[in-house]
Amino acid sequence: MKIVIAPDSYKGSLSAMEAAAAIQRGVKKADPSIETVLVPSADGGEGTMDTLVAATGGEKKEVRVTGPLGQDVTASYGILGDAGMCVIEMAEASGLCLLSEEELNPLAASTFGTGQLIKQALDDGFRSFILAIGGSATNDGGAGMLQALGMKLLDRNGTEIGPGGGELVHLEAIDDSEFDQRIKESTFLIASDVENPLVGKSGASAVFGPQKGATAEMVSVLDQNLCHWADQVEGLTGIRLHDLPGAGAAGGIGGAFLAFFSAQMKRGVDIVTEYAGLPEALQGADLVITGEGRVDSQTASGKTPMGVAQKAIEKNVPTFILAGSVGDGVDVLYQYGIISITSIIQQPLTLQEAMEQSPQLLEYSAEQLVRTFIHTKPISESGVFTL
Amino acid sequence: MKIVIAPDSYKGSLSAMEAAAAIQRGVKKADPSIETVLVPSADGGEGTMDTLVAATGGEKKEVRVTGPLGQDVTASYGILGDAGMCVIEMAEASGLCLLSEEELNPLAASTFGTGQLIKQALDDGFRSFILAIGGSATNDGGAGMLQALGMKLLDRNGTEIGPGGGELVHLEAIDDSEFDQRIKESTFLIASDVENPLVGKSGASAVFGPQKGATAEMVSVLDQNLCHWADQVEGLTGIRLHDLPGAGAAGGIGGAFLAFFSAQMKRGVDIVTEYAGLPEALQGADLVITGEGRVDSQTASGKTPMGVAQKAIEKNVPTFILAGSVGDGVDVLYQYGIISITSIIQQPLTLQEAMEQSPQLLEYSAEQLVRTFIHTKPISESGVFTL
Repeated sequence: MKIVIAPDSYKGSLSAMEAAAAIQRGVKKADPSIETVLVPSADGGEGTMDTLVAATGGEKKEVRVTGPLGQDVTASYGILGDAGMCVIEMAEASGLCLLSEEELNPLAASTFGTGQLIKQALDDGFRSFILAIGGSATNDGGAGMLQALGMKLLDRNGTEIGPGGGELVHLEAIDDSEFDQRIKESTFLIASDVENPLVGKSGASAVFGPQKGATAEMVSVLDQNLCHWADQVEGLTGIRLHDLPGAGAAGGIGGAFLAFFSAQMKRGVDIVTEYAGLPEALQGADLVITGEGRVDSQTASGKTPMGVAQKAIEKNVPTFILAGSVGDGVDVLYQYGIISITSIIQQPLTLQEAMEQSPQLLEYSAEQLVRTFIHTKPISESGVFTL
Repeated sequence: MKIVIAPDSYKGSLSAMEAAAAIQRGVKKADPSIETVLVPSADGGEGTMDTLVAATGGEKKEVRVTGPLGQDVTASYGILGDAGMCVIEMAEASGLCLLSEEELNPLAASTFGTGQLIKQALDDGFRSFILAIGGSATNDGGAGMLQALGMKLLDRNGTEIGPGGGELVHLEAIDDSEFDQRIKESTFLIASDVENPLVGKSGASAVFGPQKGATAEMVSVLDQNLCHWADQVEGLTGIRLHDLPGAGAAGGIGGAFLAFFSAQMKRGVDIVTEYAGLPEALQGADLVITGEGRVDSQTASGKTPMGVAQKAIEKNVPTFILAGSVGDGVDVLYQYGIISITSIIQQPLTLQEAMEQSPQLLEYSAEQLVRTFIHTKPISESGVFTL
């Protein structure tokens, strides 16, 4: 029997690799002869880089960059173990996680550091990129990133505009003469589930601005500025970002990739599972176990367990979910080849206790799942079961 | 496919029959074509009468009796649906549940009401009894019960001694001339897992006295009195209860049954599952689902899930446990044919919340269990699973 183990992280308690290892221990307890393949997974959100590095046996490289508000930040980019490919997680350089609640300011926050990460990876010889753009603190349309890569964004005096979505109003010209030529030689796979356009009611500022600290007034300014930015980009490239689906991802950095990069946007979980080797691992597997911290009716919209199940069903492999907690409405998942969805929790306890005990709980529940799955083993003549 | 559903009650939230119904709903959700047989079960403790009545489609009859401290109590005895047999739960007439913490007093508490229940059932024509003796508040050696059935327990003046374990010291003679003759025509199946002798360090008073409110001093008095009682019983019957295994059950009422009744002691769960029809239900079953409020390493000592599993393994039917909470050390259960042991809890919550939601949680977890069990159903050509 072969079992593929492809969980996401259990946020706040276990990385995807730690979760996979806990599940593996449980599987082996149920039957040590079972072949296990660990494919830690992610959906493009927090932890995607770590998961891809762990899944491929890669490594990380630290880079000093400029954080969202100009502070020094030590960020990392990931190098996949089995390809000349790197993975950049935008949140490392320009993430919400780098700021306190009080510091949040999408008028000022810049994607400059993300551009520096890309530049360093180019310097290191990489030309194939995976970009995980979840968790950004920015709303600058990717202007900062472009500046870090040599794009000149000039005001009426021919001076570079300052950082942040608030400064875009001063933009009068884009000079791409010194834009890093290596970008043209490179391919970028953007992990994004976001279909939002750059501006308007369902644009970056209106939909995602508030969670980055934007007041209603700021949303209005940011949206106008992104519209002005899109006008300028259209003037230079002919590409109209205003209504382009996906351009509104991550404070509009999606639009910058679509206008200036050889970029393809794909659902995060599809990129991660592909590069983590899930399709190959599923060959000949009897089942796949996946999971994450919480599973509910939202899981169907491109979360890791759903993406894993979609890959699995192509190979006729049934999917089983072990979740930190199971919410309502999960029966919508059955149609995608997900057989069962159970919690790892084994008695009344607090969230804090559940997170502290999660390695043991995940191990135990994986053991029980596999024991239930392989129940069909013969009963011994002596009347005592041996699994 | 045929599934037998044989849970105990989930204490504080669901009777065994309610639990069985919730599990059945989950099973039918997983696959409406599955044949289900409900065999609510119990281990001889609280709820045993209700469970046996429910399992056999029987009924209950109310009887006014004297409670443990002389108060009026409305108790019931059960009539099994499929036999001329009745079931008496001692706690109904002489139980801890009838007293507040402050009222507990094993020196005074009497089994008289239990005797009255037996007498009423005799009057109603029953000669086959199941006695569930868990949860008693008494330590009188069964003296009160015997008195209710016509046994004269006399002091030195030839006067009847008073109620309770404290009065046994005054016993000078037992006169069985008016002891209810119908007892001799009757059979009593005593549901008891207790192997303790009547007196001494592992006797009724020392081991069970404290939970009935006995102080160390009271334990000493109660033990001496039971020893005196056993001397008197030996004088009359030749039966030596002092060291007899089982005589110490339920404040020594076990001894009274062994000395004066045609009684057989059996593990509670074996009696209940037999009369509830578990062996017949298991014929041709694919699996049995059992469970109770808490499952831990103690479950192996004759609790319902264990007893169900032991019956099931005789028919090569695998057992699955759904528990309110799962404690440590449950892997000792695997050797008895128990395949998996999982909690019904699906997210961090309090015991109170778990108890309130238990019907839904039990239904959901039964559905997931069955979905996992029957995973082997073919995958449709369209690439979409249909269970």
